[in-house]
Amino acid sequence: MDTATLLCSCEDRSGIVAALTHFVAEYGGNIIDLDQHTDRREKKFFMRLAWDLGPSALSREDIPGAMALVAKKFTDMKWRLSFASPRQRVAIMASTAPHCLADLLLRHQMGELPCEIVLVIANHGDLSDLCRHFRVPFQRVPVTREGRAEAEAEAIGLLRDARIDLVVLARYMQVLGPGFTDGWRGGIINIHHSFLPAFVGAKPYHQALERGVKIIGATAHYVTAELDQGPIIAQDAIPVSHRDEVEDLIRKGRDIERRVLAAAVRLHLEHRVIISGNRTIVF
Amino acid sequence: MDTATLLCSCEDRSGIVAALTHFVAEYGGNIIDLDQHTDRREKKFFMRLAWDLGPSALSREDIPGAMALVAKKFTDMKWRLSFASPRQRVAIMASTAPHCLADLLLRHQMGELPCEIVLVIANHGDLSDLCRHFRVPFQRVPVTREGRAEAEAEAIGLLRDARIDLVVLARYMQVLGPGFTDGWRGGIINIHHSFLPAFVGAKPYHQALERGVKIIGATAHYVTAELDQGPIIAQDAIPVSHRDEVEDLIRKGRDIERRVLAAAVRLHLEHRVIISGNRTIVF
Amino acid sequence: MDTATLLCSCEDRSGIVAALTHFVAEYGGNIIDLDQHTDRREKKFFMRLAWDLGPSALSREDIPGAMALVAKKFTDMKWRLSFASPRQRVAIMASTAPHCLADLLLRHQMGELPCEIVLVIANHGDLSDLCRHFRVPFQRVPVTREGRAEAEAEAIGLLRDARIDLVVLARYMQVLGPGFTDGWRGGIINIHHSFLPAFVGAKPYHQALERGVKIIGATAHYVTAELDQGPIIAQDAIPVSHRDEVEDLIRKGRDIERRVLAAAVRLHLEHRVIISGNRTIVF
Amino acid sequence: MDTATLLCSCEDRSGIVAALTHFVAEYGGNIIDLDQHTDRREKKFFMRLAWDLGPSALSREDIPGAMALVAKKFTDMKWRLSFASPRQRVAIMASTAPHCLADLLLRHQMGELPCEIVLVIANHGDLSDLCRHFRVPFQRVPVTREGRAEAEAEAIGLLRDARIDLVVLARYMQVLGPGFTDGWRGGIINIHHSFLPAFVGAKPYHQALERGVKIIGATAHYVTAELDQGPIIAQDAIPVSHRDEVEDLIRKGRDIERRVLAAAVRLHLEHRVIISGNRTIVF
Repeated sequence: MDTATLLCSCEDRSGIVAALTHFVAEYGGNIIDLDQHTDRREKKFFMRLAWDLGPSALSREDIPGAMALVAKKFTDMKWRLSFASPRQRVAIMASTAPHCLADLLLRHQMGELPCEIVLVIANHGDLSDLCRHFRVPFQRVPVTREGRAEAEAEAIGLLRDARIDLVVLARYMQVLGPGFTDGWRGGIINIHHSFLPAFVGAKPYHQALERGVKIIGATAHYVTAELDQGPIIAQDAIPVSHRDEVEDLIRKGRDIERRVLAAAVRLHLEHRVIISGNRTIVF
Repeated sequence: MDTATLLCSCEDRSGIVAALTHFVAEYGGNIIDLDQHTDRREKKFFMRLAWDLGPSALSREDIPGAMALVAKKFTDMKWRLSFASPRQRVAIMASTAPHCLADLLLRHQMGELPCEIVLVIANHGDLSDLCRHFRVPFQRVPVTREGRAEAEAEAIGLLRDARIDLVVLARYMQVLGPGFTDGWRGGIINIHHSFLPAFVGAKPYHQALERGVKIIGATAHYVTAELDQGPIIAQDAIPVSHRDEVEDLIRKGRDIERRVLAAAVRLHLEHRVIISGNRTIVF
Repeated sequence: MDTATLLCSCEDRSGIVAALTHFVAEYGGNIIDLDQHTDRREKKFFMRLAWDLGPSALSREDIPGAMALVAKKFTDMKWRLSFASPRQRVAIMASTAPHCLADLLLRHQMGELPCEIVLVIANHGDLSDLCRHFRVPFQRVPVTREGRAEAEAEAIGLLRDARIDLVVLARYMQVLGPGFTDGWRGGIINIHHSFLPAFVGAKPYHQALERGVKIIGATAHYVTAELDQGPIIAQDAIPVSHRDEVEDLIRKGRDIERRVLAAAVRLHLEHRVIISGNRTIVF
Repeated sequence: MDTATLLCSCEDRSGIVAALTHFVAEYGGNIIDLDQHTDRREKKFFMRLAWDLGPSALSREDIPGAMALVAKKFTDMKWRLSFASPRQRVAIMASTAPHCLADLLLRHQMGELPCEIVLVIANHGDLSDLCRHFRVPFQRVPVTREGRAEAEAEAIGLLRDARIDLVVLARYMQVLGPGFTDGWRGGIINIHHSFLPAFVGAKPYHQALERGVKIIGATAHYVTAELDQGPIIAQDAIPVSHRDEVEDLIRKGRDIERRVLAAAVRLHLEHRVIISGNRTIVF
């Protein structure tokens, strides 16, 4: 049985939940999950609604049209409808560090990530072996100082050809241009090896050591044109001490990076994240 | 403006959310929070629905009757309707340890707990000063080995006279009889200074030291006739090490006890907990 | 039996531990705790050494002189010797928020903080009742825009008269001038309601909400002339979500603030912190 | 430059640290890490001492003999001396679940685990591919109901032939007999997918769901003849909720299992764990 998931947001007013849940019930669906949030400060309404398409339900093809009619009543409503199948097509971009990539591939193999991992793109060749083991196509797209634009265009072409829904930057150490970020708005997830907003930019662990902090963290966020400033999806932190030298911070950081990235990717794939301005609602 | 909160559960079927949210919309309410859960294994539906009673809304007096009509359609539905005002009446029972009591009184003073703390009952006199400072009536009810039944009857009488909705056992070191626990089913919260189900019973920190555990925890649960076996509301854990002697474990335990107890009390007061069998749904 | 604690640091070289532990053994002491750290990057040695003064031990009066002789062998050694009694004299400075002050007073009452709390200074009168309950002298020193310097001088006078060893800023919402911070170098602890270095300055919870972070934290640090830049003693973090409005962040923040502040104060009182540049070694 | 690490324990008395650090200094070593613990309740002394063998130091061959002379002064002293090279030889035993094995192999590849992973033994063939990718010999030793003793004998033979120092049970779902556990006392680490002592035995996640707990954990411990009762090395916990079905608990459990197991293995390989009775001192 297929499952439909609706993510929607609009100005808060009376009757939205009733209208949407009535819509599902009327067309033979059975709600399996509903999560709703009202931002009182900004007077905005957010909802995630998931339902099973029963045997007598409206066909998949007809649901979007019917939904559009309902949404019309709430003039400013933004909505997105997804189905459990076919699964989303995911590409992972990486450089040389294997930990995040290996973690995602292993989780996928164990059935934790509801998607197809269609492609891995890397600017170095180190990770091709790992991809071969997990039977995922690996494509090297080297990036040189002068050839940055060409490399980005090549990567965009590969992603387009593979009809990629979600791009995961698994410690891909290159800044993406606006041509890239605009092409997958709300569809590129990066892992930043620090709490944002602290320690923006490179070498955060060296910065952390210098400042003598007692916890370090990691942040998974959507990528926007502005570096490290996109909406945060997930964050976590772990204690560190004076005993941790830079290599220990990096090692501990790897642990938390892969955990936070995997959590964010999973939330996205389950259609649990709504972007609102520069923040996220995570159901 | 008053707020109504509905907690309900029933066998899962199609149309429940639509019926209940339609009910709210029809009578002029505006939903401010809806949280729903379907237990697929047990095929049970749970929901928490909170709405503002608008100016044109059905009057408070008429809502229960109208709700009863809706609930009838779902024959096995259990529901409980609460209003933000008047606030719930809470009694705290304690013995000699001040940390949980002081924490609850301070949080109440700072506006974190939406309730009236009407009464403190203790089997010792140590905490009367603390209650005087926070201007809460303190009642000593000594418990002797032979006089246990009388003491319990006296406490029950005091709680009844004060029309208490919720009894919080803040390190009250006495076991309650079935006469007590039956009188406030789902209305007595205890803090157990351990992870349940590990280290049931007395001296859990000594047990923890003996076993050489590396984390300790605390559990807040509803009290049932069976000691330490009631539905768990909240739990948390913190790391410990070989350096922690029993007194350190006790000190660290105090921190986590008061935090977990306060969290559980707050969840209960906000009508976020549904008891289902021996487990809880915490919205 | 009295306990001596030595904190020392110097350039790393061979034989330091042997010399210092030999010193203790020779004079009849029994080591109860030794913690040592070598910063390989900076080639610095740090140690905390605690020992019981046995009956046949060198007298308290003679230990500093003997220790000075040992330290001489290691020309750049910085050391500080403390005894368990008499206990350190602590003043707490606060404004209107009671949570950190109440927490410290309660912990002191329960025996968690090895010190005398001699004095509370506040720029408002709200907390005098709380101090009376815990039987701690309360002194109001109002701060006006023009009278800032006089107020600070008055506070310094009170602290000097009371021979205060440690000043704890328990949500004292005033910036201290260099006359103050120089007078108690390494002897003023502040709680900052945020992870440093993120969200420096005022209204960190509003900043956190605006940025949409998924964790918030608190930082206890020594106060230096530069605002919020002093050496960090303790930090911790807790998860938050889109459901948390500013008042929820503030409430959750209070929990973590008092926990982190109490931890830092305790570490300081147990002579577990060595300041090294702008960082701390916490044994 | 080679590093020596001494782990020792004995009855507490005066002069032990001085004697041991003097020993190191005398023979030209430079202490890089010293951690000491006194269990006042049991009057026992524990220490970990690590030092660099300088150019003029006593040769590796002569250190044990010299050390034995020192230890003689403290009649009940138990000690173990290790050198950084050659690295310890590790075997991993697994069944079908890849997450712990893959995690250990990946960490080893990234240089986080100071050892040689010499051999993987599994009772099923599923993980042979993974081992091939990481270039670690894989040996299948099937276990049947009747052939348990033979299988165990075969595994012991393989481990002996490979001169294995440490056996890691990475979700190896077979109970080991006393012949096995006696052969590697303090040299077999298991990951138990639960907090011990709660939920001993099989299907702990089903037990956890049934009891409605709000946190789940994992425990890494040394294996002794008594199932799941050996000394605990590391534990950790994560929050769960009513939304987590058994498969979610298992998924979350996998995360914490591999993290806790890797931490315990690393602590063991760095000679940071002393077993004392049924508890551990973890430096």
